[in-house]
Amino acid sequence: MFDVFGTVVDWRTSVSQEVRELATRKDLRVDAEKFADAWRAGYMPSMNRVRRGELPWTRLDDLHRMTLEQILADFGVPGLTEVEKDFLNHAWHRLEPWPDAVNGLTRLKKKFIIAPLSNGNIALITNMAKHAALPWDCVLGAELVRHYKPDPEVYRSAAELLALNPGEVVMVAAHVRDLRAAKAEGLRTAFVVRPDEFGPDGNPDLAPDESVDISAESFEDLASQLGA
Amino acid sequence: MFDVFGTVVDWRTSVSQEVRELATRKDLRVDAEKFADAWRAGYMPSMNRVRRGELPWTRLDDLHRMTLEQILADFGVPGLTEVEKDFLNHAWHRLEPWPDAVNGLTRLKKKFIIAPLSNGNIALITNMAKHAALPWDCVLGAELVRHYKPDPEVYRSAAELLALNPGEVVMVAAHVRDLRAAKAEGLRTAFVVRPDEFGPDGNPDLAPDESVDISAESFEDLASQLGA
Repeated sequence: MFDVFGTVVDWRTSVSQEVRELATRKDLRVDAEKFADAWRAGYMPSMNRVRRGELPWTRLDDLHRMTLEQILADFGVPGLTEVEKDFLNHAWHRLEPWPDAVNGLTRLKKKFIIAPLSNGNIALITNMAKHAALPWDCVLGAELVRHYKPDPEVYRSAAELLALNPGEVVMVAAHVRDLRAAKAEGLRTAFVVRPDEFGPDGNPDLAPDESVDISAESFEDLASQLGA
Repeated sequence: MFDVFGTVVDWRTSVSQEVRELATRKDLRVDAEKFADAWRAGYMPSMNRVRRGELPWTRLDDLHRMTLEQILADFGVPGLTEVEKDFLNHAWHRLEPWPDAVNGLTRLKKKFIIAPLSNGNIALITNMAKHAALPWDCVLGAELVRHYKPDPEVYRSAAELLALNPGEVVMVAAHVRDLRAAKAEGLRTAFVVRPDEFGPDGNPDLAPDESVDISAESFEDLASQLGA
């Protein structure tokens, strides 16, 4: 099971590129990287509103859109049409993978069932897989249980839907928090470092904690360590 | 969206072959085709028990197992071990595709999102895809909404989970009943004839009714008709 945003795909480069292209087309002045960072910064708070019951279940596409409206205002971006906003919101469906991701997944798929276990909704993750040629065997994730990671229901659902014991499932992520929550539900865990996820001034997890079972430099490295 | 049992895979040949192999190994006399037919005949009644609320939600693997216990008794098959019963029950995870299925799906996948929309549980359909090299983009189906086709929730879920309008989804099946139920929820429908599904004495649907949008001789023909 793979976390997706940051672990499989480089959201920051892809989103900021789309923001830059839109700004050029519309002759707007926007710091594209800061815009992408602000959008992503809205991710956890918006999910927390669902978690606390302030919002009913809301899929990530719609949370992204709510955050987008806010940061368009914050950044003083005027007058995008509905079509432009909708297209920009779907930038999250068009994220590019890290360079090792497709090769590593293709190797892993020969030996294991590989699936995303993301907070992204099924349409988002399925469209992204089409765009980026991610060879998933099936698409699992938060939407199927209407809980966002790190709620335990999401990790449990991965084992249940595949009719596996939790200990037969490995959660792969670049984020220690995700892996700790998976481990608490009995999954095995693999850390893959993504030092560039948050850009040159970011603060990524550069090492796992002692709870993880595997630590890898890339998906290719992960495949090698797992004999795939 | 594809119906799977009978539409994508030839359950009767595959299941009877596994029954025959088991009978040979155990030196049992069993009519393997009749056994497969009896097993499949238990399919609809067992789902109806869930539909009527006589059983709580029960995934198809477990319904298959309940039916298996009954027909082992009916056919007078003695003393299979738990391991043998479990392996036999998983014959449904190892079904072989019709000869045109993988090529047709591979062509369709280049142009469309392709997904199973089956009463088979996610583990069953995912394992089958690994076994038979079915190149699904994602795996949808009854288990995700805890309703069995032809309940409308299953067809609705396909459009909802992919964030599509029902009319943007095509249900593909060899069974007119499945297609009628999909059409009632606003999906478009494609009939693919599978004259051999039930064997030489079977009674398959040999033609669609007037409600279907597309009628095809094979998945290759379907791909051609859809320009894929």
